[in-house]
Amino acid sequence: MPIVELHVLEGYGAEDKRRLGEALTDAVRFVVPAAPEAITVMIHEMPEPHYYRGRTTRGGAAALPDPKELVRSYLAAMEARDLAKAEGMLGECFTMQFPGTVPMTKLKELIEWAAPRYRFVTKTYEGFDAMQSEGAAAIVYCRGTLSGEWPDGTPFDGIRFIDRFEVEGGKITKQDVWNDMGEVRGTARKAEVRP
Amino acid sequence: MPIVELHVLEGYGAEDKRRLGEALTDAVRFVVPAAPEAITVMIHEMPEPHYYRGRTTRGGAAALPDPKELVRSYLAAMEARDLAKAEGMLGECFTMQFPGTVPMTKLKELIEWAAPRYRFVTKTYEGFDAMQSEGAAAIVYCRGTLSGEWPDGTPFDGIRFIDRFEVEGGKITKQDVWNDMGEVRGTARKAEVRP
Amino acid sequence: MPIVELHVLEGYGAEDKRRLGEALTDAVRFVVPAAPEAITVMIHEMPEPHYYRGRTTRGGAAALPDPKELVRSYLAAMEARDLAKAEGMLGECFTMQFPGTVPMTKLKELIEWAAPRYRFVTKTYEGFDAMQSEGAAAIVYCRGTLSGEWPDGTPFDGIRFIDRFEVEGGKITKQDVWNDMGEVRGTARKAEVRP
Amino acid sequence: MPIVELHVLEGYGAEDKRRLGEALTDAVRFVVPAAPEAITVMIHEMPEPHYYRGRTTRGGAAALPDPKELVRSYLAAMEARDLAKAEGMLGECFTMQFPGTVPMTKLKELIEWAAPRYRFVTKTYEGFDAMQSEGAAAIVYCRGTLSGEWPDGTPFDGIRFIDRFEVEGGKITKQDVWNDMGEVRGTARKAEVRP
Amino acid sequence: MPIVELHVLEGYGAEDKRRLGEALTDAVRFVVPAAPEAITVMIHEMPEPHYYRGRTTRGGAAALPDPKELVRSYLAAMEARDLAKAEGMLGECFTMQFPGTVPMTKLKELIEWAAPRYRFVTKTYEGFDAMQSEGAAAIVYCRGTLSGEWPDGTPFDGIRFIDRFEVEGGKITKQDVWNDMGEVRGTARKAEVRP
Amino acid sequence: MPIVELHVLEGYGAEDKRRLGEALTDAVRFVVPAAPEAITVMIHEMPEPHYYRGRTTRGGAAALPDPKELVRSYLAAMEARDLAKAEGMLGECFTMQFPGTVPMTKLKELIEWAAPRYRFVTKTYEGFDAMQSEGAAAIVYCRGTLSGEWPDGTPFDGIRFIDRFEVEGGKITKQDVWNDMGEVRGTARKAEVRP
Repeated sequence: MPIVELHVLEGYGAEDKRRLGEALTDAVRFVVPAAPEAITVMIHEMPEPHYYRGRTTRGGAAALPDPKELVRSYLAAMEARDLAKAEGMLGECFTMQFPGTVPMTKLKELIEWAAPRYRFVTKTYEGFDAMQSEGAAAIVYCRGTLSGEWPDGTPFDGIRFIDRFEVEGGKITKQDVWNDMGEVRGTARKAEVRP
Repeated sequence: MPIVELHVLEGYGAEDKRRLGEALTDAVRFVVPAAPEAITVMIHEMPEPHYYRGRTTRGGAAALPDPKELVRSYLAAMEARDLAKAEGMLGECFTMQFPGTVPMTKLKELIEWAAPRYRFVTKTYEGFDAMQSEGAAAIVYCRGTLSGEWPDGTPFDGIRFIDRFEVEGGKITKQDVWNDMGEVRGTARKAEVRP
Repeated sequence: MPIVELHVLEGYGAEDKRRLGEALTDAVRFVVPAAPEAITVMIHEMPEPHYYRGRTTRGGAAALPDPKELVRSYLAAMEARDLAKAEGMLGECFTMQFPGTVPMTKLKELIEWAAPRYRFVTKTYEGFDAMQSEGAAAIVYCRGTLSGEWPDGTPFDGIRFIDRFEVEGGKITKQDVWNDMGEVRGTARKAEVRP
Repeated sequence: MPIVELHVLEGYGAEDKRRLGEALTDAVRFVVPAAPEAITVMIHEMPEPHYYRGRTTRGGAAALPDPKELVRSYLAAMEARDLAKAEGMLGECFTMQFPGTVPMTKLKELIEWAAPRYRFVTKTYEGFDAMQSEGAAAIVYCRGTLSGEWPDGTPFDGIRFIDRFEVEGGKITKQDVWNDMGEVRGTARKAEVRP
Repeated sequence: MPIVELHVLEGYGAEDKRRLGEALTDAVRFVVPAAPEAITVMIHEMPEPHYYRGRTTRGGAAALPDPKELVRSYLAAMEARDLAKAEGMLGECFTMQFPGTVPMTKLKELIEWAAPRYRFVTKTYEGFDAMQSEGAAAIVYCRGTLSGEWPDGTPFDGIRFIDRFEVEGGKITKQDVWNDMGEVRGTARKAEVRP
Repeated sequence: MPIVELHVLEGYGAEDKRRLGEALTDAVRFVVPAAPEAITVMIHEMPEPHYYRGRTTRGGAAALPDPKELVRSYLAAMEARDLAKAEGMLGECFTMQFPGTVPMTKLKELIEWAAPRYRFVTKTYEGFDAMQSEGAAAIVYCRGTLSGEWPDGTPFDGIRFIDRFEVEGGKITKQDVWNDMGEVRGTARKAEVRP
């Protein structure tokens, strides 16, 4: 039943509008238990000379990139070890935290830290969640399982992981990672140390 | 600049409207790089005889409870080991997955599984993220650090965790947990097994 | 899909609004092939000090009575031969035209004209159609079948009829009647005159 | 005073919009006793990417043809005995009922039935009424007088008639006819049988 | 034709709304050559929990007093030499300029300056004009004629005057006065000095 | 906070819309003590087939010229003694009133009247105020100081003046002038006549 009308300045693309249409629908569904089909969104566009605030027209700013897509590209670049490309997606104050280590700020540090932990790792995605936080950052979560090889060449897979990203102004500013590698390694080790 | 107008049937409380106002603002901010102060939300309420779909009036459904608050209450009940209360917040098909174990469906299973792993655990929250997914479920994330005691009484704290919840129709239907316990235990064990 | 918003002055009753909701829905359906469920009507009411035309507030006029109900009452009064009541529903310039006679303006004339044609007649309704014409009058059609007795006491029934009414300012100003009585009488007569 | 706003998807022609503007004005006038000049209709058009229901855009359906024009064309084709053209305007389940006969479904039947009743007949229209019913069908009434020749070549005219049509999905599905032919023939016959 | 919709927070009185209705109508008439009767203003009121800017509700500020009424009261107080009352309507940085003297800031100065110029003066108003300037001040003009007595007791009347006031935050901050007293005195004097 | 929506027929230029945006903002500010930045104006344009009053579309009239600009041009033409141009800006019933004379209707009269009063005069503008009155006329005020030469060639300057114009249908219909020339001349004369 609920009907949402959005008034925006002209200039957003069909993809931006699709994201707005979906986000506004879901914002309503977060509170009102209406079936999606019962929620209507209408976008009303205005050319600049049709909009005044404080007696003057205002230009509309370009849409923010989809943070989910940004994170996807970043993770793909990392998996391909294309550090230059990945670096280009990071904000100035980027920090990341991985299981069992201190926060790091450089991708190189991460690579060095990972070296003795696994030969390589590949992500299989189970799902993404993305939203605007009440602060400046958009939040993107992605979760799924890791597969790859331990330093000794033993393969592993099915290890659960989740990453949380903060994205501001189209740049990734924070990455937090949790996974079950420690559990798995622990179990393996426990097995090993058994007499 | 963007202005959002929401038309809904009468009957939502001030708290529901606040959640709608915030969610709609954030939905716009997810795409349009406007400062929050530049985004206006107007809620227009209609009594039932002012709204027709298919030639008939429709009653508005009661607002969904805030899933973030639901999760907070659930976690508090679990920490207090008030299983009855916690159980009351779970949907029929509830499943949960913790690090290093198979999916479980009963809180009792969880308690039994945890028994040999730690004496007790307390959560310190760093942040919650909540949103409506494109599916039926609302998603709530909470993260922070765990403190407590290992089975042998040794205290621990500062262990990072993150929980992901799915909430449908006011009930928790899924809980996924990741944390660094395995890393920490692994490290401890490694120390132990050193000659 | 289409959404209709109606802005009116406060003061219309739930029944008036229901009629507005239905009429507006059907106005859209007359042109747009949308399922009724896909058409939404929102009525926005304004108290008098919220509405200005020509710099001054305007009071809203009371709703017109439902012309369909007016016609129903009129026909019931006529069937019950409650001429005083029926007369009270007629406008000053009321005219009526029945099959095989000149236009009449008084209910008495009608009664006299009908006397040699049937002893009494009862209407069974099959349907009503009502709409606002582009002129001042609302139009009401009702159709169905007549039963009763011929002057000689022979019963008849199942004779198709249709009445068309014009209603202005809550009064009936015109009634046009068509039916198959002539066909039926003709057939009867033909039978009679056969040798 | 009342103001109607209609939100529709882009794609309707000027003629469709004129019909919407008129039908919406008349829908209001059916209930609110406002002069036509006091009723404003504004049509707001949206391109497809500006409209979302259930998180997805929806295409607008082509406007329904004006049922009044359809009926006019049908009656003209029938008068010109262009049965093929008339047939093309009929729905699959078309039925028609004329005075003094059983319901028919084929135009041929009608022609055969009419043959012994009149040589030809021409309609002079006095008025059309058209509206959307609450069901699927649009209703069109047309009324006026018939002129033509009886089987023996005697001319007649001024015989009142009314037709009621149901139109669904751009096809005529039902035609009901009433007229004073029986009255007139009856009168003629009565004269004849007088000694 | 133009239609203005104003969305404001609840809390404005009928008189405030009347002033808004008039000012908005006239704002349109300033540019669009429509008859006043063709301009509609609708005021839509929102209770506080229905309005969000920057994710938070905002309280509406009390309406500004009508600056025209303020000026009227001030002029009446001055004419009645109720300086205390008049003083209470002045802003802190009040300045006034009268014909043939330097700007003054205190009402006492004015009284002293006027003493040798006339015994008393009474204003007959011909008209007021009031508007919001593009700056912070509302502007009020009043014009008409002065009557009174010269210092020597000779009466005068019909002397044209105009006053311009600036009003900010409900206080008069500036008064500029022009009149024909100089012309009249000059003429009188010229007559006197004639031999 | 207040939001103004204006619905107008298509056809107004960017400059007309700017004037509407400003006038509507100021109309709100005249009553509501909101900062200009807190007032939003949205102009919604309709092509002619999207607007119906009394069941028919209506064409929009061309915007009125900016009366402030008209007055500016008129005053410039007068200062340049381009009487033909100035005359072209006057309405049929134009009247003007200057200090110390009777109302005049022809620019020639004015020139003749001014001849013995000053050789020439130049206006330095301090400000313009313009608004739509509640009547048919727009009102324009301009004020500032006069400089020029007295008939004997003595220069003068800094003499305060104010002009009030009424503009109807793009023509000036009334001009009222006040200034301190009388004061200044009087002072001069007083000085002269002193022994």
